[in-house]
Amino acid sequence: MLNQIDPEMRKRRIQAIMILGDTTLADPNLMYVAGGTLPRGGVYFKRVGQKPLLVTSNLDMPTARKLGRVKSIETYSHWNLEKLSKKYGREEAFPRLLAEIARKNGVSGKVALYGRNDLAFGTYLVDKLRRLGVKITNDESPSILESARETKDADEIQKLRDVGRKTGRVVDAIVEVLKGLKRKRGHLTLRGRRATIGAIKALISSLIVAEELGAPEGTIFAIGASSADPHNAGIPSDEIREGKLIVFDIFPQSESGYWHDLTRTYVVGRAAPKDRQLYDAVYEAQRISLDSIRAGVTGEDVMSKSCDVIERRGYRTIREVFQGKLKAVSSGFNHPLGHGVGLTIGERPYLSFLSREALKSRQVVTVEPGVYLPGHGGVRIEDTVSITSKGIDTLARVNKEFEIT
Amino acid sequence: MLNQIDPEMRKRRIQAIMILGDTTLADPNLMYVAGGTLPRGGVYFKRVGQKPLLVTSNLDMPTARKLGRVKSIETYSHWNLEKLSKKYGREEAFPRLLAEIARKNGVSGKVALYGRNDLAFGTYLVDKLRRLGVKITNDESPSILESARETKDADEIQKLRDVGRKTGRVVDAIVEVLKGLKRKRGHLTLRGRRATIGAIKALISSLIVAEELGAPEGTIFAIGASSADPHNAGIPSDEIREGKLIVFDIFPQSESGYWHDLTRTYVVGRAAPKDRQLYDAVYEAQRISLDSIRAGVTGEDVMSKSCDVIERRGYRTIREVFQGKLKAVSSGFNHPLGHGVGLTIGERPYLSFLSREALKSRQVVTVEPGVYLPGHGGVRIEDTVSITSKGIDTLARVNKEFEIT
Repeated sequence: MLNQIDPEMRKRRIQAIMILGDTTLADPNLMYVAGGTLPRGGVYFKRVGQKPLLVTSNLDMPTARKLGRVKSIETYSHWNLEKLSKKYGREEAFPRLLAEIARKNGVSGKVALYGRNDLAFGTYLVDKLRRLGVKITNDESPSILESARETKDADEIQKLRDVGRKTGRVVDAIVEVLKGLKRKRGHLTLRGRRATIGAIKALISSLIVAEELGAPEGTIFAIGASSADPHNAGIPSDEIREGKLIVFDIFPQSESGYWHDLTRTYVVGRAAPKDRQLYDAVYEAQRISLDSIRAGVTGEDVMSKSCDVIERRGYRTIREVFQGKLKAVSSGFNHPLGHGVGLTIGERPYLSFLSREALKSRQVVTVEPGVYLPGHGGVRIEDTVSITSKGIDTLARVNKEFEIT
Repeated sequence: MLNQIDPEMRKRRIQAIMILGDTTLADPNLMYVAGGTLPRGGVYFKRVGQKPLLVTSNLDMPTARKLGRVKSIETYSHWNLEKLSKKYGREEAFPRLLAEIARKNGVSGKVALYGRNDLAFGTYLVDKLRRLGVKITNDESPSILESARETKDADEIQKLRDVGRKTGRVVDAIVEVLKGLKRKRGHLTLRGRRATIGAIKALISSLIVAEELGAPEGTIFAIGASSADPHNAGIPSDEIREGKLIVFDIFPQSESGYWHDLTRTYVVGRAAPKDRQLYDAVYEAQRISLDSIRAGVTGEDVMSKSCDVIERRGYRTIREVFQGKLKAVSSGFNHPLGHGVGLTIGERPYLSFLSREALKSRQVVTVEPGVYLPGHGGVRIEDTVSITSKGIDTLARVNKEFEIT
């Protein structure tokens, strides 16, 4: 939460932070402190214990004012960017502007930098600012911003719930579409044409847009062998066929910047016994893991619960790699159980074997066990939940149907 | 172009480059060298004069292979990320892995880093790698990657043309929609409802999706006073009214990663004489600037041509700020004339008063003069063109209608 920035700065003895970038797109830290989207980004400056300052281009001033999170907003021109560019050249002007902000605000202690930028620029900036006398320090991991963003305030949870509700409506609509597919000369058809992955994905896209969401990272709708590769988004020309595993993983972002992540696995018609066993293993793994989550347990604990179930049911898991029993999981549960969701679709906390910290109330995570049989298909079931002291609150309630008949 | 990476490395005496990130989303450098999208990103390593290596997560291996641009692909596990994590902790494991890649490849000279990452991680990485003996240097601006990406090969220009053609179809369709608006009890209506900016933007979104494009940075469709703010995306509840200036700025991205950028200004019905004068000034400015572009002239030259026209027609320009005659442009032409387009929607080269280098063949730029009258409205006209030795090639041919009647 935003109000954790000051205590985190004090704890690390960092006198000032600067969060900067030329866009808020895919920059959760800058978006977080600015309160929304700034097309050309900006510089957020905060000295410990003091109110922040936001410096933007002239063009983005009205937008920055509208966002309203930072009260004190100034332009690059106010900080003489044009004059500095003339005197020092375009490249050097920017670190000089930052150094001037630090100087005018009486900063002599440690300063930490944030915001997504190319490492070429980052390397230059760090070296140049140090030469200009600014004491750039590397904040430890998790950074002040990651720590603040890890727990969500009520307004954020509401925004996350809104994306979840809209995502759920898209998934429900697609299930109705699958239920309505017609059989025609040995093929499943949609509006008279063969029901391909491409056709279903086009429908998903338009439903996402209709809900005023975006899907900048795409959507996974994969059938058969493709579903065994957790990152195969689906082959557009593949046809929907009865009895084949379908993994539908949807992760849209709303205009608020917040994401949702949800996966369901389906079979149109009847599932083969082997696939039913696979589904039941993953379903039980998810249920047991969900039941085990509450503030105080670790991500490792929660992931272990899923591995217990999946191994007991006869599949391999990545735990065996950590235990040194396997070099890699070629068939089985081969990825972490979950990750945080907020202004990114993958952030702290993680539910993996490297997650030994206690989970906290107000964290929002996915729980997504999956088992994959290469060449055949996979099953993954995923929900996004917020953590409370007693358990969880599922952000979107969407049916877990398997056979669509 | 990709084949410029080696000569640029030699020129700067950089022995190796590493391009890394946890996603290719909004990371043009990583996307450029990987040849497309890697959901979890990766590390691209290249020693001067040698073939590159791509290191990805196990999950992204199949995707990386399919992209096919880099032949030699290995996993983080192959480089012992899990063991390094156990030994040094999660944070330190990654720089240790990078240092190991450099060491095993016999790198003892200067190494430059690229790829979009948070500056907190960037600061840590630079300091840690240097402590591990890797000679991290800051590549000058423009970086090796920016220099390579600045000119486009035939395949890239084809991809840019494809996005342009699709974008043009969306714009044409919207013009037809505007032509088809019905007058009903003093309001313009669309399918029986009041024609609002929100309704038109929903249509634009679905047309963008239908063309298999995305618009991660949104679309501007702004009427009246909103159109005077170049970054006001349009107020959803505003109604389309006759005689008001409408700025339609569309900038979609295709799955290939390439963008297009196009702006048209319309008035539904008849324009007031004041608005017609405004339009004619911007139209002439764009035409004269477009006529002046070819390999060899500078961005400053091209921008000056637009300012000549606009000032002669009685409006202020940002040139007067550079000349010290004005503190800021409150009403007039207040932004650069254009920017490069490729795997980003704003890159080198720029057409501004700071652009003193000669433009080159195979660069792709926007030409977008605009004049804004606060409280009233604005006009901007923009095309994306590729530069040749003789002039330009417009990537999307879209009518320049002003009055929609």
